[in-house]
Formats: sequence, structure tokens, C-alpha cells
Amino acid sequence: MDAVGAVSESPSQLAVQGRFLRACRREPVDATPIWLMRQAGRYMPEYRTLREKYGILDLVKTPELACAVTMQPIVAFDVDAAIIFADILPPLEGMGLQLEFVRGEGPVIRNPIRTVADIDALRPPPPEAALGFTLEAIRLARRELDARRVPLIGFAGAPFTLACYAIEGGPSRHLVRVKQLMMNEPAAWDRLMTKLSTVAGEFLVAQARAGAQALQIFDSWCGELAPRDYRHRVLPHVTRTVEIARTAGVPIILFGTGTAGMLTHLNTAGADVIGVDWRVDISDAWRQIGSDTAIQGNLDPVALLADWDETRARAKAILDQVGNRPGHIFNLGHGVLPETPVDQVRRLVDFVHEASKR
Amino acid sequence: MDAVGAVSESPSQLAVQGRFLRACRREPVDATPIWLMRQAGRYMPEYRTLREKYGILDLVKTPELACAVTMQPIVAFDVDAAIIFADILPPLEGMGLQLEFVRGEGPVIRNPIRTVADIDALRPPPPEAALGFTLEAIRLARRELDARRVPLIGFAGAPFTLACYAIEGGPSRHLVRVKQLMMNEPAAWDRLMTKLSTVAGEFLVAQARAGAQALQIFDSWCGELAPRDYRHRVLPHVTRTVEIARTAGVPIILFGTGTAGMLTHLNTAGADVIGVDWRVDISDAWRQIGSDTAIQGNLDPVALLADWDETRARAKAILDQVGNRPGHIFNLGHGVLPETPVDQVRRLVDFVHEASKR
Repeated sequence: MDAVGAVSESPSQLAVQGRFLRACRREPVDATPIWLMRQAGRYMPEYRTLREKYGILDLVKTPELACAVTMQPIVAFDVDAAIIFADILPPLEGMGLQLEFVRGEGPVIRNPIRTVADIDALRPPPPEAALGFTLEAIRLARRELDARRVPLIGFAGAPFTLACYAIEGGPSRHLVRVKQLMMNEPAAWDRLMTKLSTVAGEFLVAQARAGAQALQIFDSWCGELAPRDYRHRVLPHVTRTVEIARTAGVPIILFGTGTAGMLTHLNTAGADVIGVDWRVDISDAWRQIGSDTAIQGNLDPVALLADWDETRARAKAILDQVGNRPGHIFNLGHGVLPETPVDQVRRLVDFVHEASKR
Repeated sequence: MDAVGAVSESPSQLAVQGRFLRACRREPVDATPIWLMRQAGRYMPEYRTLREKYGILDLVKTPELACAVTMQPIVAFDVDAAIIFADILPPLEGMGLQLEFVRGEGPVIRNPIRTVADIDALRPPPPEAALGFTLEAIRLARRELDARRVPLIGFAGAPFTLACYAIEGGPSRHLVRVKQLMMNEPAAWDRLMTKLSTVAGEFLVAQARAGAQALQIFDSWCGELAPRDYRHRVLPHVTRTVEIARTAGVPIILFGTGTAGMLTHLNTAGADVIGVDWRVDISDAWRQIGSDTAIQGNLDPVALLADWDETRARAKAILDQVGNRPGHIFNLGHGVLPETPVDQVRRLVDFVHEASKR
């Protein structure tokens, strides 16, 4: 794909790069920026075509393919940011865990952490060695994206979500093993979380050095915790990840799901932007985190599967709740669902820009 | 089982009946009352013994067996309330849906709602005809419980959670079909929710007439909704269920999971008690719903799988957050997990009574 050759520098595209990064810093924008978690994914026919030939880890680990997938939604839609096509779990592989993607099951760790000795055996690897493929994909994507004036987001899993995969080994409804370690073995838990938070932070810094212009930390599981457990057993470690990542000098987004009861805690981790899911009114969320932090969100991904009038009404309600207050990045509350019609994504992106024009 | 013959009228047991019902009305109590969702369940060897011989629906539909299961935790622990052993889904059967419990999969509806015509074909049945087995189990259980001075809770599924099962037919991660109906077909959605809320309300009234001394409405799925969708598309129907149930003159508990972002809405449904899960600090939750409503919760069920010192610390933290304020019923944030040690339940029940003694 030669995306550079297809560049058309419309006024809106020239505005794009500034719009997302300015919103991260809560500076005034010409219109509300929008990008979507999993904007490159199974709902796009171009993506499915590649997936027929390659496994997910093949796409992630082949820089040219990861770059091509990253560009698919940029070519298709007027989104205000790209996010590198990668996965949160390869850093665990670099630490000695065996990762596989099983069709229909998702990611599986073949040798999950079961003992304190397993924790002490984990080797935090230098990011360049273990995750060079994503760093190279970032370098490739930046060349194509710069021509389009679209900024690139790098990302990592938050230490708690990484711990969930490392310990449970696969999907887990109640996170019993994770919480048992957290509750019963606080010293071992702290050692594990220190390793994971450091690896995540260093990987984020490496991504920024390779060209990522913003960094998102994904904590998809933190909402399973009681707020007090989050605060005492998890927050110090997320804060470490943010502190390390901050040395790269680019905006940091901290995203979690199910966080309506712990947003004030998330906010103290020091990120520039808090990403929220749809289970909280965005105005309530912003009141909780205060006006010194930007906010990202928060349309229910299922709203993209409704009739357009209903989708639009829900997107409008979010824009209305925010008003013209600077520092809002429109996004879904979680990833685009595979059954989402492509046209709905296009309409949403265009609607958010039009309806929020200052 | 002749539970009546085993009664020992210790002072604490004499206090019990008043304690739970008084807390529902926010009246002063001698100690904080406690009962546990799924306190009769797979973690108890007595229950597993019965389950080796009978399916779940056999237990639910045979009044003598349902009564025996209801009494198991009352005999084993000093809990302050019993809850009738029943299920939220049999009312759907009475309306024409085919319910099965598949081992390892949970409940499955063989002919889920797929069209507006399916909704209009649902026949709300008179509770005595369709759910006589639970009403008879309540009558039987009351005889045994009265001798022990333990009050009995009846329950029903909230209309949204019933709609989830009726439409999805089984477990569903994103509730896509439910939300699509809710978003795209508001008139049909209202007709469905009106039927379900009326059936739930009438079933609750029938349970109170049969002897239930309090009524809990379970909305296990409502936390999957955006707060605005809950408020506009669900709340009017839960409110109808509460209004119908209220004619029975007993306290009403409205329980939902993942509700940290919508507690003020839940509270307007008019229940006497709001049940919260562990994903919100109980003091925050109570601040949101205000002091005119009692609160039930909210220990993480996984905390019962921790070492006792940790379990106790977490239970103590909840009691400390509440203080001596009347109107707190101690419970887990969701059901007891099957792998919970029986001794941990006993210790928790006794600890809550001792630590909260006025």
C-alpha cells in the first residue's frame, strides 16, 4: 500500500494533527478530535482480507503488515489519530511467558504464573530486543502518517491487566487467582507489579522514541477491583508506568473500563487524559477527575450497531454534555465490535467533526 | 430435615428477625445484619449432595427441596435472613419461553425473542399458576424459619435482566441484540419491558402474600448500560416493578452490579434498599443515593477466598466506612463463589456481628 501517494491535503486534514494533540493538552481546537479503539480490526473488509492470510501475531510481528493495518482506518476515515497495530501481550513473551492466540478463544498463556518462584523468574527484557517489531512498525507508520498530518499513538497494557493475563493464562470471569495473589501475597504481588509496570513504562518510552506522538495505557480489567484495592495495590504501579512514560515528553492517556467508582484514584496516576467507558456519564466522569485532566470517550460500542439516527442522538448527547470545554477526545467506551458496519464508523467520525465545529 | 427440632434460641438468634427488617427501614439495630447472595449454593457440601441427585430446576420446582436448600445456610450459619431458593427465569417459562439449564453453560432459552411478533406473543401468566412451586416453597420455609426467628426474602429478576435472557437466549458479552432492540425499536422495547416489569412485580406481590417478608429485585446486567440509557429506557420499567411490589407492604431491595455510574437513577425507582456490588466504595454509594435509602453490600466475593486476616480487614473496612449509621445490611457484592470455603462464610458472618455490636 502506498498511502503517501494517495494524500489529499484538505483543510480538515491539515488541522487534524494539531487537533488530537491539542485536545490532549486541553488547548482549544477547531472541532472535537475523534479516533476509535480497535479502529483497525475485523469490522473492516481490508483487515479481514489480511487476517485470512496471517495470524494476529504474524500481523503484529511483521512491521510492514502492522504498518499496513495501522493505515487502513486512516485511509478509510477522517479520524484524528492513528494507533499502532500491536498487542498488549508480547511484552509478557519477552519476560519468559509463552503466548498464543487460539481461534475463538483469544490470547492464551501456556505457562501462566502460579508460584512466587515464577514471579521471581520473570526477566524484564530491553524493549528494543523483545519488541523491536512494534518499534519498527512505528517508524514505518510515521512516514506514511506524516504525509497525511495524522499523529500516531503507541500503547501498552497497564500492569494490572498484564498481571491478569500472566496469572490467569486466559479469559477469567472472576480473576480469582489474580486477586488471591494480590490479597494473600502482598510482597510477591508488589514484585510482580513492579516488574510489569517497569516493562510497560519502558516499552512506552521506546515507542515514543521510535515516533509515537502520544501513549495510551490500557487497563481493561481494573474495573473488576474494589476501589480500595485499586488504590492500595494497583495505583502505585500504574503511577510508576506513567512516571517512566512521562520521560518521553508526549501526552499520556490512561484508559480503563468499569472505572465509574474509582475515577478519582485513576486520576492521581498523573496521566494527561483519562479514557472512560460508556458506563458513566462523561460529565460526571469529568467532574470527578477535575478540569486539569483531559477526557476521552465514551460512546457505547453497541450504539454503532443501531440505526444511524439513534447512533447520532447518542453521539450528540455526549458532545452536549461536554459542551465547548477544551480537552475532550471523542472515542468509543471500548473497542469497535467486529459486527460494526463500516459506514456507521464513517458517519460517526464525520458527525463528530461537523457537530462540534467551533 | 427437621430444622425446627434443632432450634436453639440464643439471644443473638432472637434478635435476628428484627435486625434485618429494621435495617431495611433504617431503624437502629443491635448489630449490623448480614446475609449473602447465593448463601445456599455449590460451596456447601449439603447443597452439592442434593445437586448430585437433582438438576437446578428440579430443586427450584419441588417445594420441599427448595425449602430444604433455603434452610441449609440458616442451619449452618448465624445469618440474619434467608432467601428463598428459586431462580429469576421461571417467570419467562410461564410467558412461553423454553428454559433449560445446560451443565457448564448455565441457563439457555431455546426460543429467544427475535422479532416484534415474538414480543407480542408473550403471555403474562398469573403467578399462582406459573410459579406455584416457589410460592409453596415460601410457605414451607416460613414455618421452619419462624421457629428460628429468621425472616425470608423473596425475589425476582428486574425487567432489564429478564429481557437480556429472553432476547440473547444465553450468556452474551456485549448484549448486542438487547441493545439493538432497545435503541432501534423503542415502542416494541417498551411493550416487552412493560410485560416483564408487570410479571416481575406481580410475582413479587404473590411471594409476599405467600410469606416473604422482604423482596429483592435482581438487575445483574443493568451495569452494561450507559447511565442515560438506563434512565430513559429501563428505569421507568423497574419503577413499575417496584410500584407493584410495594402494594405488598414489605421492604424492597433493588440490587444491580456495575452501577457505580448510575446509582442516583437506581435510587429514584423507589426501593427501600439499594444493593451495590464491590466496584464502588460503600460510603461513596451511600452519599450518591442519600440517607433516605438503606444500603446493602458490598464485599468482593473473591475476598472470601483470601486468607482470613485479609478477608477480615476488607470486611472491617466496609463497616468502618459505614460507621454506626443505621440502614446497612452487610452482604457480598454478588453471589458466593462455588470455590468459597464454608469456614470463611461462618467467620465472616460472626465477625460482622461482633465487630458491629452497638
